[in-house]
Amino acid sequence: MKKFLLNENEIPSHWYNVLADLPTPLAPYLHPLTGAPLTPADLEPLLGREVIEQEFSTQRWIEIPHEVRDIYRMWRPSPLCRAERLERALDTPARIYFKYEGTSPAGSHKANTAVPQLHYAAREGVGRVTTETGAGQWGSALAFAGALFGIEVAVYMVKASYEHKPYRRSLMHTWGATVTASPSALTRAGRRALEADPDSPGSLGLAISEAVEDALGRPDTKFTLGSVMNHVVLHQSVIGLEAKRQLEIAEDYPDVVVGCVGGGSNFSGLAFPFLAPDPARNGPGPRLVAAEPAACPTLTRGRFGYDHPDTAGLGPLLPMRSLGSAFMPPPIHAGGLRFHGDAPALCHLYENGRVQARAFEQNEVFAEAVRFARTEGFVMAPESAHALKGAVEEALVARETGQVQTILFGLSGHGHFDLAAFDAFLAGRLEDYALSDEQINASLSTMPALRPAGGRHGG
Amino acid sequence: MKKFLLNENEIPSHWYNVLADLPTPLAPYLHPLTGAPLTPADLEPLLGREVIEQEFSTQRWIEIPHEVRDIYRMWRPSPLCRAERLERALDTPARIYFKYEGTSPAGSHKANTAVPQLHYAAREGVGRVTTETGAGQWGSALAFAGALFGIEVAVYMVKASYEHKPYRRSLMHTWGATVTASPSALTRAGRRALEADPDSPGSLGLAISEAVEDALGRPDTKFTLGSVMNHVVLHQSVIGLEAKRQLEIAEDYPDVVVGCVGGGSNFSGLAFPFLAPDPARNGPGPRLVAAEPAACPTLTRGRFGYDHPDTAGLGPLLPMRSLGSAFMPPPIHAGGLRFHGDAPALCHLYENGRVQARAFEQNEVFAEAVRFARTEGFVMAPESAHALKGAVEEALVARETGQVQTILFGLSGHGHFDLAAFDAFLAGRLEDYALSDEQINASLSTMPALRPAGGRHGG
Repeated sequence: MKKFLLNENEIPSHWYNVLADLPTPLAPYLHPLTGAPLTPADLEPLLGREVIEQEFSTQRWIEIPHEVRDIYRMWRPSPLCRAERLERALDTPARIYFKYEGTSPAGSHKANTAVPQLHYAAREGVGRVTTETGAGQWGSALAFAGALFGIEVAVYMVKASYEHKPYRRSLMHTWGATVTASPSALTRAGRRALEADPDSPGSLGLAISEAVEDALGRPDTKFTLGSVMNHVVLHQSVIGLEAKRQLEIAEDYPDVVVGCVGGGSNFSGLAFPFLAPDPARNGPGPRLVAAEPAACPTLTRGRFGYDHPDTAGLGPLLPMRSLGSAFMPPPIHAGGLRFHGDAPALCHLYENGRVQARAFEQNEVFAEAVRFARTEGFVMAPESAHALKGAVEEALVARETGQVQTILFGLSGHGHFDLAAFDAFLAGRLEDYALSDEQINASLSTMPALRPAGGRHGG
Repeated sequence: MKKFLLNENEIPSHWYNVLADLPTPLAPYLHPLTGAPLTPADLEPLLGREVIEQEFSTQRWIEIPHEVRDIYRMWRPSPLCRAERLERALDTPARIYFKYEGTSPAGSHKANTAVPQLHYAAREGVGRVTTETGAGQWGSALAFAGALFGIEVAVYMVKASYEHKPYRRSLMHTWGATVTASPSALTRAGRRALEADPDSPGSLGLAISEAVEDALGRPDTKFTLGSVMNHVVLHQSVIGLEAKRQLEIAEDYPDVVVGCVGGGSNFSGLAFPFLAPDPARNGPGPRLVAAEPAACPTLTRGRFGYDHPDTAGLGPLLPMRSLGSAFMPPPIHAGGLRFHGDAPALCHLYENGRVQARAFEQNEVFAEAVRFARTEGFVMAPESAHALKGAVEEALVARETGQVQTILFGLSGHGHFDLAAFDAFLAGRLEDYALSDEQINASLSTMPALRPAGGRHGG
């Protein structure tokens, strides 16, 4: 393995905002009740001032506060590694690099946005924040940041994960957060779900509804989100900015960048900085490939339209590819990818053909994660293994064609809390979930009829 | 937090062998059957040629094979961090640094010796190795190295851990190792233990007996050990060698070095390089403080003498402080510290007054681990938290006296597989275990009567 490290003083000084470089402007968010274009003022009951400003900004470079960079230093710059042992195992002429975000205290890239979100919250006098979490990576990252800034963190955790991932919950407790299984009796949205089904396993969309409702009901509380929105994608750009610099040191440049997509923040953080104007380069830049689970195929089988980020429809209507906010993905272990929509900026670039997408089944993804563990050593999260699978596919194409390709993929987090899933895979007990067209169409039919301009793939 | 990083080319080129600089020579190991001084040939049925040579070597610097350094690059050089947020929380004038080994694929310092041990094994044509593991950190590290070198790894895991830490076991499976609960029916030592008590929870000493017996019975198999022996201590010296260089960059030097002690390899790896001759420095060098659990107080309450590393007496008699090889430590969560003896080199330096020791109760140790998580972000293993507790004690003394002290402690691994223990602590369900003099004396009375020269503390 070759590793390309940066010094602390090479942590980026500015985040990169892809909204400055979209081929056409992003369609506006819409107010969930009136359907009118959403204004910054509309978001004020929910989000902090600074992140609202970032949400609407089209400024290309936004400065990273020095307090945030100071905390980033705990784990940033993160390593860029060349997976030479994997290359040999695949017998491919391709060069495979991965950007490893698993060294953050919470174990994934989510800390990159948890820290600035709570830095701004602390500066704005916010004493408490709510959020949702599925597999628990985002909830852990926010709990970690809450401990550093002395902000109370209330996490609504999808009940299925709450019960099956007790140690993610313990991690949040260790950092001092409170964790509630969703659906809960604490909110109207939760009570309604429990009335309909007392054994409801919950969903990300429902947990968002509960966290939003909680925040709207308390003046000391703001809501935070770990993916999807522009300001989150913005914060994650540190990943790609560092990777670009590290590839320069490696005297290389990617032909293709692969990331896993749930809400899209990890993919976007890694890939979008390659869309920034670069005076040193001509040409179209790398291909960008989003890897998603076949069990939650928002890009490959969803529809581009307006949809809520949450089940109860409390959040704004976002222009995105969606499977419908009521979509209940099968219980794959990559809990962080079980979201019915995607970041608007990512969807916009997908509609414009700048981003491609591939969907993978659970077993083929775990098979690659195990091969990686046995060649490159690191045991990765099932989410990240989708990106790995996409990268391996590219490397195998390179073997067929004999073309030397440079492949960069995002290793978003470690798999230390996912070992029950590895057990199941090794024992041959892991399921694949083929979704029928009927299932997909039933779910799509729940989407609002509103359509933003600029759809390409139809749906 | 400040972080002091090294480049890949600053991974040490040589390990440091403290046997070159002991104030008096180490007493010889003795043959377990004859009691005669052990020769390299005696060890050949059990261990590989190269590690046997290292075990007896008094050469100060031993070259690290380039293949080993190449794999070290996956996680080395490891970061040295200054814990400024903890310093502020403690209101101490002391500067607290920690050397963080949790970024290795297996999550602890154990990989530093697993990799060279299996590199040599592969070079010597060994197809299979056995070992013991308690909490699972050593077993995981060896499984990881086995995957890289294509060597079959058979782990005897203390049954209590096998049952309570299923995810450490899953991790070993993911890397392709086989894991057997000890005591097992596969060995005479195991069967004897099961006959005496079918519900035996096992112990490290017993698991070593099984792994040794297995290796002695198969010509293709060697035994490996994750602590205690000279060659293991040697390999771990990369920790301290890097830390010395990083402190130079920080323009600092430790007044005291604190490490946790189970078998002693982490402590020794961090601390012993400060005993190497240093032309740039006069004076005695830092104080060296070993932090051990009050539930397994080998240094503070054990006796210096000859003892076996294993219950069945298959291993050589080592000159060490021991509680007796039949000692069954209470079930503290720091499973890696539940060993009845310590590395001979460490014991020798303790007897000579060059190393001090402190023993801590489980609850006070976890309280510090939680404070650290909430100030510095990282959730550490309970083993490592003993070193932290020792460092905090030193920092609080510095606050009392107003003296500016530089404290370096070893953070040997992350706590991602120990969150059930954090849960128990946060719920107030964690026990302390005060050992009575009667318990200790009963156990000490099982030690052989043989005494090496050079005891200081009596016992």
